[in-house]
Amino acid sequence: MAWTTALTELLGIDCPVVCAPMGGSAGGALAAAVSRGGGLGMVGGGRGERAWLERELSLVTQETTRPWGVGFLSWAVDGDTVARALEYRPAAVMLSFGDPRPFAGRVREAGVPLLVQVTSLAEAVQALDAGADVLVAQGTEAGGHGGGRATLPFVPAVVDAAAPTPVLAAGGIADGRGVAAALALGAAGALMGTRFQASREALVPARVLKALVEGRGEDTHRSRVLDIARGAPWPARYTARTLRNDFLVRWHGREAELGADAAALEQYRAAVARGDTAAVPVWAGEAVDLINGVDSAADIVAEVSAQAARALASAVRLS
Amino acid sequence: MAWTTALTELLGIDCPVVCAPMGGSAGGALAAAVSRGGGLGMVGGGRGERAWLERELSLVTQETTRPWGVGFLSWAVDGDTVARALEYRPAAVMLSFGDPRPFAGRVREAGVPLLVQVTSLAEAVQALDAGADVLVAQGTEAGGHGGGRATLPFVPAVVDAAAPTPVLAAGGIADGRGVAAALALGAAGALMGTRFQASREALVPARVLKALVEGRGEDTHRSRVLDIARGAPWPARYTARTLRNDFLVRWHGREAELGADAAALEQYRAAVARGDTAAVPVWAGEAVDLINGVDSAADIVAEVSAQAARALASAVRLS
Repeated sequence: MAWTTALTELLGIDCPVVCAPMGGSAGGALAAAVSRGGGLGMVGGGRGERAWLERELSLVTQETTRPWGVGFLSWAVDGDTVARALEYRPAAVMLSFGDPRPFAGRVREAGVPLLVQVTSLAEAVQALDAGADVLVAQGTEAGGHGGGRATLPFVPAVVDAAAPTPVLAAGGIADGRGVAAALALGAAGALMGTRFQASREALVPARVLKALVEGRGEDTHRSRVLDIARGAPWPARYTARTLRNDFLVRWHGREAELGADAAALEQYRAAVARGDTAAVPVWAGEAVDLINGVDSAADIVAEVSAQAARALASAVRLS
Repeated sequence: MAWTTALTELLGIDCPVVCAPMGGSAGGALAAAVSRGGGLGMVGGGRGERAWLERELSLVTQETTRPWGVGFLSWAVDGDTVARALEYRPAAVMLSFGDPRPFAGRVREAGVPLLVQVTSLAEAVQALDAGADVLVAQGTEAGGHGGGRATLPFVPAVVDAAAPTPVLAAGGIADGRGVAAALALGAAGALMGTRFQASREALVPARVLKALVEGRGEDTHRSRVLDIARGAPWPARYTARTLRNDFLVRWHGREAELGADAAALEQYRAAVARGDTAAVPVWAGEAVDLINGVDSAADIVAEVSAQAARALASAVRLS
């Protein structure tokens, strides 16, 4: 089915559903599958690791002629990498977590719509100053990195602050009901991460797919432990939501101690090397409760789109 | 306007909007005003302080012939108080925070619909076991006491677990867009607290109304500091969301130390006695961003209802 929102019109897509550019797991195959399904797939360019990025961008251009995008971490990427990605002619570039201004001009000069993800009203103002075409208002229930606001009250506050710039809702959305709720809040669409992480095309091992299908929202939490354990220099204000595991629970609240404990850090590296799920966290948002199976990402888009239309049709009949 | 949801049909009300039974501030005047507006007003019976309760229940019965309700804290109230409240013939009784089973039978025997507020899926199962007629799924963005789940992903998970029992969404909702989102998620209505706290009929001083109109969602946080300072024996799993102030910031993370510091506790009591806003917190949810004025609660219901209908009508046209 075809939707008409400010997002679908800007990008020429059918469904107001965007796959989060999840670093490492949202490769070209996942992006292409989401786009073939009618949404906007995004390659997770992360910090901009060049070999991975070029391989996955080549892949997405081979696998679909539909619009697709690429996302980067503003605190970590460099301008040359963004420029290189633009050569592949994405339909959108998304910048998250940090100041988008060093890269915004380059994206806009290329005539490519710029999406900026924000986790506070101050970041929303900064993104508008940078000339963002779309804001992605991300709530704390999101999987992976994020801030402290909750999606339901944050989205309408960003919609009011950003108007007439369109806003997408992100965080806590994993089915059509969540997309319908996002549209009811005044958003022009929704961005989903965890739901697409649990897809056939995501670059994740089987043990992660199993953990996502079995995981519960109350088993997730936000923490800096993971970034300290792996030595990832994320800005401290962005914590990571994952399924809880023994390692995270042991070090929660003792992050400084962990950073100084060479033996513990070595134990973490060894656990990663052997894929030990007691130590290696599974990225997951609170909406993992709503994920009950692993499908193709194109089928997920179709199912979510149909469920969103049903949810809105049911709700409007109540009035 | 008139809505038809499982909630409006069960209670014979026009709008699927419930005012949270806020202890101390949701008296008979507020409950009556919400009910006159077409929603369900609730007297905030709290722990069951008898003189206050009887005065406010008498007031609500004088001020409206529309259905109204009364709420209690399950961890604190006693059966005799619930029985006394039932003599005033409420249209609904709501139990929150703790095991509802000691009181559920008495409410159901009186033929009065029982609403049970839940903050986890385990509490939802317990509420269904208790025979709740409606569950209120409360997210962590709510003002006042609550748990750790976010409303947007929590509500559909409770809807799935509770079906066919109706579910209301609570937490982070302060306008018609939030009510529309709740209905899109599959809820039968929404419960709002902070929005009605900022009403003419709420029993709150002018400085609180001013703080709510000026307050921002990012200025709120959850803490146990307030309950420890005032010696309120709340179960530790339910923290309180308020606007941040100097006292809360000073003691956040040092709750045990505060509880043992007689001089600090005495300073808090003295600050309360003189109404010092640097110490006395203002209860507020994250949706306080969306509150820009103080109206009559009946007008708030009408405005929210009309905005919810518009939001759903706009969203359904997108598909």
